[in-house]
Amino acid sequence: MVKIVVLRWGHRPQRDARLTSHVALAARALGANGLVLSDIHDSNIKRSIDRVTREWGGSFFFEMGTCWKKIVKEWKKEGGIVVHLTAYGENIQNSEIVKRIRETGKNILIIVGSQKVPGQFFSEEVSDFNVAVGNQPHSECASLAVFLDRFFMGEELVKNFEQGKMKIIPQKRGKKTNQEARSKT
Amino acid sequence: MVKIVVLRWGHRPQRDARLTSHVALAARALGANGLVLSDIHDSNIKRSIDRVTREWGGSFFFEMGTCWKKIVKEWKKEGGIVVHLTAYGENIQNSEIVKRIRETGKNILIIVGSQKVPGQFFSEEVSDFNVAVGNQPHSECASLAVFLDRFFMGEELVKNFEQGKMKIIPQKRGKKTNQEARSKT
Repeated sequence: MVKIVVLRWGHRPQRDARLTSHVALAARALGANGLVLSDIHDSNIKRSIDRVTREWGGSFFFEMGTCWKKIVKEWKKEGGIVVHLTAYGENIQNSEIVKRIRETGKNILIIVGSQKVPGQFFSEEVSDFNVAVGNQPHSECASLAVFLDRFFMGEELVKNFEQGKMKIIPQKRGKKTNQEARSKT
Repeated sequence: MVKIVVLRWGHRPQRDARLTSHVALAARALGANGLVLSDIHDSNIKRSIDRVTREWGGSFFFEMGTCWKKIVKEWKKEGGIVVHLTAYGENIQNSEIVKRIRETGKNILIIVGSQKVPGQFFSEEVSDFNVAVGNQPHSECASLAVFLDRFFMGEELVKNFEQGKMKIIPQKRGKKTNQEARSKT
């Protein structure tokens, strides 16, 4: 099974707090193994994501503080590839780029920027693929979601999150979990 | 052509500013016709989204301030349906819910909450479909992106945004637009 880790670059603690949380929630819900917040610490986000994982299951990890260059270098050394999500890259819809990435069979580090990213991110030294989820201004949270959904072909959305205390029981109407069966209609 | 509008509910100006911007950017990039920020005004977001549309093309609209009940009522009166995105709903992956929604052939108002939403949102008076992009805690921005991508089956990602001054020329590496051809490698 291919391992996918998200590298979140350029996080600014005040400004990006909720967005980075959402990137992490999306990564977890859509099948990534973990997220590394590079170059900076933000313990509030780590706490809230770790709590979600404790309550809702699975083994999603949240790490932080390591320099992005070191992460990329070690990832490549271990045989993984790097996918950079950017509106300037090859369009995911008409370039068969997801197929090409899948065919490498390798573990994937997905870089999602927050601020404008360094030019280096586009280079061969860093990214093996530059992927655009459409070539319009975008949300990195949305781009990540679409990329993961397409990569896993939806399988991630029905997988079991092991050892979660909480589980939702899907319904046409109302809210139901394994903890309580409240139907609000 | 089916018309899709996003209703963003529960926006808190300070806390949700960037997230709501990202929801709007995702809605635009992934083919929605517009977004209505219900019950509140936030002119900063409107300004920034309108600027994106002016520069990058298309006819995405951003409206705000109308009460959500009024929006839903008028939408239904004009024959449209309402889709509520919630982790508690039917799982998009194994319920054929997108197919059922598509088969109605009707215009779609997609409700995405920010805070915990009123129980009413789950009721027949409001939502025709409650859709879960997986049944795990999620980002509404990510859920919206996956829903739109699946609804349009990717077509939205290669559509032409008319009258945009700026256009990206997709590349394997570097950044290139119709305005300037800079290759950063």
